[in-house]
Amino acid sequence: MFLRIDKLQVEMPAPTEPDPNAAAAVQELLGGRFGEMSTLMNYMYQSFNFRGRDKLRQYYALISNIATEELGHIELVAASINSLLNGPESAGDPATGTASYKRAFKDVRNVHHHIVMGHGAMAANAMGQPWRGDYVFNSGNLILDLLHNFFLENGARTHKLRVYELTDNPAARQMLGYLFVRGGVHAHAYALALEELTGVEMKKMLPIPKIENVALPESRPYEDRGFHRKLYRFSPDDYKDVAAVWHGQALDGSGPLEVVDGPPEGGDLAKLDGAADAFTPEYHPEEIYEMAQKLYQKAR
Amino acid sequence: MFLRIDKLQVEMPAPTEPDPNAAAAVQELLGGRFGEMSTLMNYMYQSFNFRGRDKLRQYYALISNIATEELGHIELVAASINSLLNGPESAGDPATGTASYKRAFKDVRNVHHHIVMGHGAMAANAMGQPWRGDYVFNSGNLILDLLHNFFLENGARTHKLRVYELTDNPAARQMLGYLFVRGGVHAHAYALALEELTGVEMKKMLPIPKIENVALPESRPYEDRGFHRKLYRFSPDDYKDVAAVWHGQALDGSGPLEVVDGPPEGGDLAKLDGAADAFTPEYHPEEIYEMAQKLYQKAR
Amino acid sequence: MFLRIDKLQVEMPAPTEPDPNAAAAVQELLGGRFGEMSTLMNYMYQSFNFRGRDKLRQYYALISNIATEELGHIELVAASINSLLNGPESAGDPATGTASYKRAFKDVRNVHHHIVMGHGAMAANAMGQPWRGDYVFNSGNLILDLLHNFFLENGARTHKLRVYELTDNPAARQMLGYLFVRGGVHAHAYALALEELTGVEMKKMLPIPKIENVALPESRPYEDRGFHRKLYRFSPDDYKDVAAVWHGQALDGSGPLEVVDGPPEGGDLAKLDGAADAFTPEYHPEEIYEMAQKLYQKAR
Amino acid sequence: MFLRIDKLQVEMPAPTEPDPNAAAAVQELLGGRFGEMSTLMNYMYQSFNFRGRDKLRQYYALISNIATEELGHIELVAASINSLLNGPESAGDPATGTASYKRAFKDVRNVHHHIVMGHGAMAANAMGQPWRGDYVFNSGNLILDLLHNFFLENGARTHKLRVYELTDNPAARQMLGYLFVRGGVHAHAYALALEELTGVEMKKMLPIPKIENVALPESRPYEDRGFHRKLYRFSPDDYKDVAAVWHGQALDGSGPLEVVDGPPEGGDLAKLDGAADAFTPEYHPEEIYEMAQKLYQKAR
Amino acid sequence: MFLRIDKLQVEMPAPTEPDPNAAAAVQELLGGRFGEMSTLMNYMYQSFNFRGRDKLRQYYALISNIATEELGHIELVAASINSLLNGPESAGDPATGTASYKRAFKDVRNVHHHIVMGHGAMAANAMGQPWRGDYVFNSGNLILDLLHNFFLENGARTHKLRVYELTDNPAARQMLGYLFVRGGVHAHAYALALEELTGVEMKKMLPIPKIENVALPESRPYEDRGFHRKLYRFSPDDYKDVAAVWHGQALDGSGPLEVVDGPPEGGDLAKLDGAADAFTPEYHPEEIYEMAQKLYQKAR
Amino acid sequence: MFLRIDKLQVEMPAPTEPDPNAAAAVQELLGGRFGEMSTLMNYMYQSFNFRGRDKLRQYYALISNIATEELGHIELVAASINSLLNGPESAGDPATGTASYKRAFKDVRNVHHHIVMGHGAMAANAMGQPWRGDYVFNSGNLILDLLHNFFLENGARTHKLRVYELTDNPAARQMLGYLFVRGGVHAHAYALALEELTGVEMKKMLPIPKIENVALPESRPYEDRGFHRKLYRFSPDDYKDVAAVWHGQALDGSGPLEVVDGPPEGGDLAKLDGAADAFTPEYHPEEIYEMAQKLYQKAR
Repeated sequence: MFLRIDKLQVEMPAPTEPDPNAAAAVQELLGGRFGEMSTLMNYMYQSFNFRGRDKLRQYYALISNIATEELGHIELVAASINSLLNGPESAGDPATGTASYKRAFKDVRNVHHHIVMGHGAMAANAMGQPWRGDYVFNSGNLILDLLHNFFLENGARTHKLRVYELTDNPAARQMLGYLFVRGGVHAHAYALALEELTGVEMKKMLPIPKIENVALPESRPYEDRGFHRKLYRFSPDDYKDVAAVWHGQALDGSGPLEVVDGPPEGGDLAKLDGAADAFTPEYHPEEIYEMAQKLYQKAR
Repeated sequence: MFLRIDKLQVEMPAPTEPDPNAAAAVQELLGGRFGEMSTLMNYMYQSFNFRGRDKLRQYYALISNIATEELGHIELVAASINSLLNGPESAGDPATGTASYKRAFKDVRNVHHHIVMGHGAMAANAMGQPWRGDYVFNSGNLILDLLHNFFLENGARTHKLRVYELTDNPAARQMLGYLFVRGGVHAHAYALALEELTGVEMKKMLPIPKIENVALPESRPYEDRGFHRKLYRFSPDDYKDVAAVWHGQALDGSGPLEVVDGPPEGGDLAKLDGAADAFTPEYHPEEIYEMAQKLYQKAR
Repeated sequence: MFLRIDKLQVEMPAPTEPDPNAAAAVQELLGGRFGEMSTLMNYMYQSFNFRGRDKLRQYYALISNIATEELGHIELVAASINSLLNGPESAGDPATGTASYKRAFKDVRNVHHHIVMGHGAMAANAMGQPWRGDYVFNSGNLILDLLHNFFLENGARTHKLRVYELTDNPAARQMLGYLFVRGGVHAHAYALALEELTGVEMKKMLPIPKIENVALPESRPYEDRGFHRKLYRFSPDDYKDVAAVWHGQALDGSGPLEVVDGPPEGGDLAKLDGAADAFTPEYHPEEIYEMAQKLYQKAR
Repeated sequence: MFLRIDKLQVEMPAPTEPDPNAAAAVQELLGGRFGEMSTLMNYMYQSFNFRGRDKLRQYYALISNIATEELGHIELVAASINSLLNGPESAGDPATGTASYKRAFKDVRNVHHHIVMGHGAMAANAMGQPWRGDYVFNSGNLILDLLHNFFLENGARTHKLRVYELTDNPAARQMLGYLFVRGGVHAHAYALALEELTGVEMKKMLPIPKIENVALPESRPYEDRGFHRKLYRFSPDDYKDVAAVWHGQALDGSGPLEVVDGPPEGGDLAKLDGAADAFTPEYHPEEIYEMAQKLYQKAR
Repeated sequence: MFLRIDKLQVEMPAPTEPDPNAAAAVQELLGGRFGEMSTLMNYMYQSFNFRGRDKLRQYYALISNIATEELGHIELVAASINSLLNGPESAGDPATGTASYKRAFKDVRNVHHHIVMGHGAMAANAMGQPWRGDYVFNSGNLILDLLHNFFLENGARTHKLRVYELTDNPAARQMLGYLFVRGGVHAHAYALALEELTGVEMKKMLPIPKIENVALPESRPYEDRGFHRKLYRFSPDDYKDVAAVWHGQALDGSGPLEVVDGPPEGGDLAKLDGAADAFTPEYHPEEIYEMAQKLYQKAR
Repeated sequence: MFLRIDKLQVEMPAPTEPDPNAAAAVQELLGGRFGEMSTLMNYMYQSFNFRGRDKLRQYYALISNIATEELGHIELVAASINSLLNGPESAGDPATGTASYKRAFKDVRNVHHHIVMGHGAMAANAMGQPWRGDYVFNSGNLILDLLHNFFLENGARTHKLRVYELTDNPAARQMLGYLFVRGGVHAHAYALALEELTGVEMKKMLPIPKIENVALPESRPYEDRGFHRKLYRFSPDDYKDVAAVWHGQALDGSGPLEVVDGPPEGGDLAKLDGAADAFTPEYHPEEIYEMAQKLYQKAR
């Protein structure tokens, strides 16, 4: 079972300008075949269905623990999309037949962001197509599943690099800079697991594509702080066996790999105001806020 | 972000006989439109996209916290499916051209359980159709989202009752008995939230269908222990504001509602052996076990 | 706009034995690519999007009117599926942990009939896959659309013949016998429309496959009564221009084609009792019946 | 079975400027999960599969009758989309290698409107994704189905409000103004049905979102004429039992609810000319018009 | 089984300017319901599943041989899409946080062309929806299958004409000009096959829509060279029985139909350079080229 | 472009008993995510979209050539499915209201084999779900695409092994025995290509799962004849550069790898009779055979 902490894994910049088409592109990294929903659910189901758990404990621990980190990743990408969709109140009002800001949404690629979601993140890809449960690969054969995971992380990285090229909005770039580094840890970890079991030095194939994270301005600060050497153990007391896989040297020779007991420090969630003109949380947000606060006081 | 504990939310009986068609039916409760993947992701995205978080804190806390409990529910239903698919080794062996036990899978409803998953749970419904991201409803309008959640929990209950009728395998029935009670808590909590904001006494509509949990032999023990009055707070320190919604009396008048700080005690995961004849984790499981244990010793 | 009459287009026999796999097969004729949902929606959208309505009035009238007949066909196939799913009450009761009749549903092909629908017809095909809006073909080019419709009717007939071979349950066979004849009228009408506009004698291609309706024991009575010569005008006052297409001789030389002003006499809908053990309409049907009747009396 | 009247339920303004992206947005209200195809087919299948029809007659009548009204709604939304796609003939001609107006379609969101549909409405949502049969919810449990319908109507209203904000084209706004009122009647009617059966005053939750129809300039005229108090009985002689649900006072206190015997007066369908450059109905429309008229004369 | 020749069926112009939205539109002709993937797979499966192959040999040969030609058509349409996506190197570089050309892709309709495909053709339609295996129609009834194929070719032609109107990029127009002629041959051939078996003169319905290929500037040169009279036999020695169907006169009276032994002369594939900024084939293309060439020399 | 030879790549045994559920299972190997449609179309699109073709010629040649071999594999798996569906004529006849053999199809898993396909192979998986174009992975990054292909071949092998366990029908087993060997060649070839470009010895990971082909009774004869060392060049004159990748020693040390110029000898297609009771090719097959033969004689 799981616990939740009301923080993001990393600090994110405050929202700036809305950019719906950038938000649509970032959706690929959430709900696309190689998005965080996929990495999350692939590892989650692999942990649920793991056979020989006690005898293969380090691999069970590794997959289970990375799955938990991915929960924070869907949260982080969703936060980035929310920032890209967050905008100034419209001058318009349905009650006067006008709605000027929202009207700009008519021509965006993913109009579901407005009509269906009220300007929030969807479980869908960059074309608005829903994430599908058959994106989960879980053959039960340990080597094949690890090979898949190694491939999946590299496919995910390629898609992230291409989304990176489409926008320089800070809400997208900060998230990307962080995830290039964390995805790099995952790819490295699966490479180590495969190498142990097969003798094949998968890590020599990294990075795919052949551009180092450190070359990307938004990733460099995280690499400088050694995030690429750290595997966080996202659990109060369990999954300690990850250390039996995650040890040795960093790929860039910058120092030893280390298991960090517990999650990263993290950052606060952005405060997103309601939008009367999207009816989120209501047409008259102040009224519902007031009522909620009154009820809250009463209940204490 | 999230932490993970290597336990199920409740103790489960040991697997008995394999029953692939029952496993297929239980899939509806995992990957169907009203399955746990849906409750999980509906509440998860609603928490990601929540607007006016600080002013509507008790509703944010409620939705976020139930989402976290649902993570444990997909784990629990997946464990039940694994039990239903777990079986004795086949007398057959591909290398001799025979594979008697597996051959029985030819006529089952969901042959993907064998071919694709190696006898594990899928992110799919009872007909083997993948879970879809557009099962997530999140309008951003708080009242509409709460109304949806109330409806969703009752739809989920109806489907569970009908799956209950299809099998009396203990691995399915224990899971169902527990989830009728927990789902009941969620429906009740959403009813309370709606009642506060609209004055409409939704809780008078419960239960849907009109059969009490306590009437179901596998739920009664949990009701007797008061599980239907407890909202667990699945977090080290956050989401305490759930108490501003979850208070008052139980629907059956058995006592006051209470918020429990922390998760339930839980139960151990079943030990599932590898199956050579499904190649999970390998064709010669003992070889890979031995190697893994050697590597494990070396790494310590 | 539309009006509704609380009758089926034809009398149907009372339900006999439940036969879930036959019900599943008949679903193809409702929600499959060549099912009645498809013929309905193809002609409906073609009528909505028709260009040059006044100058091509006989074709507009023909398509619009057949669309309306198809509404009665989805109703008829759904009634047939309901009959095939209708069964004796189970001896079991969830409250005692038993549910013997429903348990038989565990092994059927379409378990959604039980879990999701409570034993009713779905908008899905014989494999339980949902009907899709892109089954609608509507190019806007009149000749291409008529050619499509001619093809669609013949594809539908082929699928019906194959479902006919799978079951001899009277609830399925009566519906099939009737629809072979009505589908024959539609294919003939589209052939006449095409022949007028292109000079190509499409009707010489009929029937496809080369087995006459009159050879099928359940169709013969309808042919004997001349149903294959009649185009019903399903409208109080409109679409009279169908007569400009539907005239001439029957394909079997049995007499002149005729337009009937108004719908056929039709037959009553079967009385389907509630099923406590499917919670339809409720777990204690008698209670809800009683309450409804009290409310009904009060409201009069 | 059904009859058809060759009129829309309400008068619509003549088409003005084409606006393909507005047409694409309006598609959500036709083929989206909360579009008119969904309300139509939900109620239609609920009426087909209704159990205990005679004992629960007022609910059967209500659902059956609203289903029939929804047939007119898919027609109305389709007419609005046709208006938004209707445009001046292109100066271009494929035969000269030019096609200037159509070329503008290259950059629209839903290019299928041109390529596949020849500028007509599709059974798809605002992202061009086809409507799906599993959007139909029909549990067979009466209370759950009514709760769903109440939720569905409010979800539909929220989506309509957001589409309203995207365009002020009269062809869209008139349709929306009318449907806000009719949808309000349906939500109210389902609330009354639920209240009778459960005692829960659902109607106090309306409207969702909290903006009154009367505040919307295009709805006000219909409210002024009392359309929000009228339930039309779309049948020559049946479904009279709706009156046992639809009685009492309007939510705005403006007077008593009333059942109108028969459909509204309605309005004429727009005359949509053929478009040579979309080959609808043909490349040389005049030729096919002339031939059709000649055939028409001959057949009379 | 199959052989491959490293040439396109026809010469194509060199790529000019990139035009991503035109590329997206052309996708309909590759992965849409009426695209080349559909014609290919329809005829391919019809040839795989053909019953009575030796007694109906001319029809088997015809369908099998046209299927083989369609393989070249998916290749040709893909080449056209590649041309439309091919562009100048970006001045930007991820390593400097800039990527100017690629950023323009943020607003295109099909952003998967960039993120997922690295600027190559997809097995998807103009809306980015994947081609589906159920686009294959194969009833096994010979007349119904031939009727379908005749319809399919004409639907494909209609879609092609509408894509033609959307762009005058030479890479699209040359492909279209050629395929109008080849598709015309296929429609004609299926018409002849149907006419033989049923006596119905389907060919009198052609062309649909009523615009002759010869009227289209890009098709005329191919018609002038008689391509519309030639059925290529795409096989070293087999399928000679096509001649039993493909004989008689061209529809335009320009001369006799003829079977050409072997494929057309064809044209070279365009040389598409790698794009460092799409990481295709790599971030530093020159490095991988050099390595590959070294390995190539060594291996000879 | 492509040529076709009217032979299978290998001889297949004559059909024996029909086994519809085995046929359904084998569908996974044709239309599943890891089926032959997927290997075919992955490599086909990778060859269409290849960048830097001349500088990376050995990889272009390898992928293009394996794609061509896969065309023969979809043909082979389809032939196997046809064998498993081929059966004795029914004693029944629709015209007498009886159809005994076909009635057995009512209870099979994939009833579309009867209703939709007339007992032929579908482009769908073992659950009857259509193959989808987004099963194609083609990032354009050469190393990532090769890594994917290596993974794909091993996933395909795992699924084949599990289908192998489900049936010992000779029509399935012979096909499987052959494809284990050919798939092994492809996995080996992609491993070699990756090793050249990255230095990582992927071939040491083979076989996945850890059961040698030679251990499978139906594969051994092909291994004995050295099929696992041969890469066929499926082209009259092109793709000779495959030899720059495919050289060195067999994995089992049995001898050198070799490129064979041209396709294997192959085997004849099975003669499948028409089935009157499936209307394939017609209800009275003899009539259509006779007519076709008459026409054939006349045309010569």
